[in-house]
Amino acid sequence: MDLLKQRILEDGTVLPGNVLKVDNFLNHQVDAKLMDQIGAEFARLFKDEGVTKVVTVESSGIAPALTTAIHMDVPLIFARKHKSLTLTDNLYTASVYSYTKQVSNDISIDKRFLKPDDRILIIDDFLANGQAVQGLLEIANLAKVKVAGVGIVIEKSFQKGHTMIEKSGVRLESLARIASLDNQEVTFVD
Amino acid sequence: MDLLKQRILEDGTVLPGNVLKVDNFLNHQVDAKLMDQIGAEFARLFKDEGVTKVVTVESSGIAPALTTAIHMDVPLIFARKHKSLTLTDNLYTASVYSYTKQVSNDISIDKRFLKPDDRILIIDDFLANGQAVQGLLEIANLAKVKVAGVGIVIEKSFQKGHTMIEKSGVRLESLARIASLDNQEVTFVD
Repeated sequence: MDLLKQRILEDGTVLPGNVLKVDNFLNHQVDAKLMDQIGAEFARLFKDEGVTKVVTVESSGIAPALTTAIHMDVPLIFARKHKSLTLTDNLYTASVYSYTKQVSNDISIDKRFLKPDDRILIIDDFLANGQAVQGLLEIANLAKVKVAGVGIVIEKSFQKGHTMIEKSGVRLESLARIASLDNQEVTFVD
Repeated sequence: MDLLKQRILEDGTVLPGNVLKVDNFLNHQVDAKLMDQIGAEFARLFKDEGVTKVVTVESSGIAPALTTAIHMDVPLIFARKHKSLTLTDNLYTASVYSYTKQVSNDISIDKRFLKPDDRILIIDDFLANGQAVQGLLEIANLAKVKVAGVGIVIEKSFQKGHTMIEKSGVRLESLARIASLDNQEVTFVD
């Protein structure tokens, strides 16, 4: 998605440790119009996949997942993060490790909202090591729902999430694929 | 907003302790089309207020705030929640007590994103005791931005948030105002 790549080049900042900071238009301050266009693009890419629900994890996945759900005219579910102590009888739960925060959290979806005839589209803002997506794939497996695909706004293709999803056989579409952040410079794949 | 009130009556569940559960269409599973209509309604109500940015708190405020921002064609900012230990030199920060979770968290917005010529519209999914809105009003005060108004999806008018905002002199628009949840039944104001 050229509009997004251009925006990353203009407004993104590369910090030491392969961190791409895009909090001025994606995950703290949000360019609402761009987010709407991102949702329209995911809806276009996955329009023939029979998607019944869009699924993400709170918080920064919610914006792109919501606009995608609006453009596909299906409900959105955002998995909740919580400490691993919570009672989980009525929940599908997976453990997710955050490399950024160096902490494990559970993510959960209420069992009422995923049924075996659902085909879910997983949307997230970032793909790095793929922990959040892996957690959602685990929940999909527990709920016996089909996964129509994974849509990512910004993928760091040099980290292991891309390969993990590819190996799982699930269709992956990333709107911006970053090959490298070396020398504090963004280089896209291709 | 009649569509919303009808949906609350059909799909909301009242739990003991004045809890209204709407996690099947508002804050876990989200009716994307309804959320878009909610955003359109807030944009209509506040269209003459010169709003430059929509502001909310993660996570469940993000959906209605984003659709409002899309319809108003302005950026969205979602304040981040974090433990009170975080370094905050570059942040406007306020402390927010959650009655539901019985814990205090800080909420913060990066100083780069609020400037004195901004006129912000605060959007949230629920108004009960008004702690989150109060935190955002404090941040607005620190940043010296004007507050164009507060838009709430569901207000529990019998709790103290409504009066608190009214006293502050800020315009408040709630799309559904609940007078009582007694006897596990929803009664609207009017």
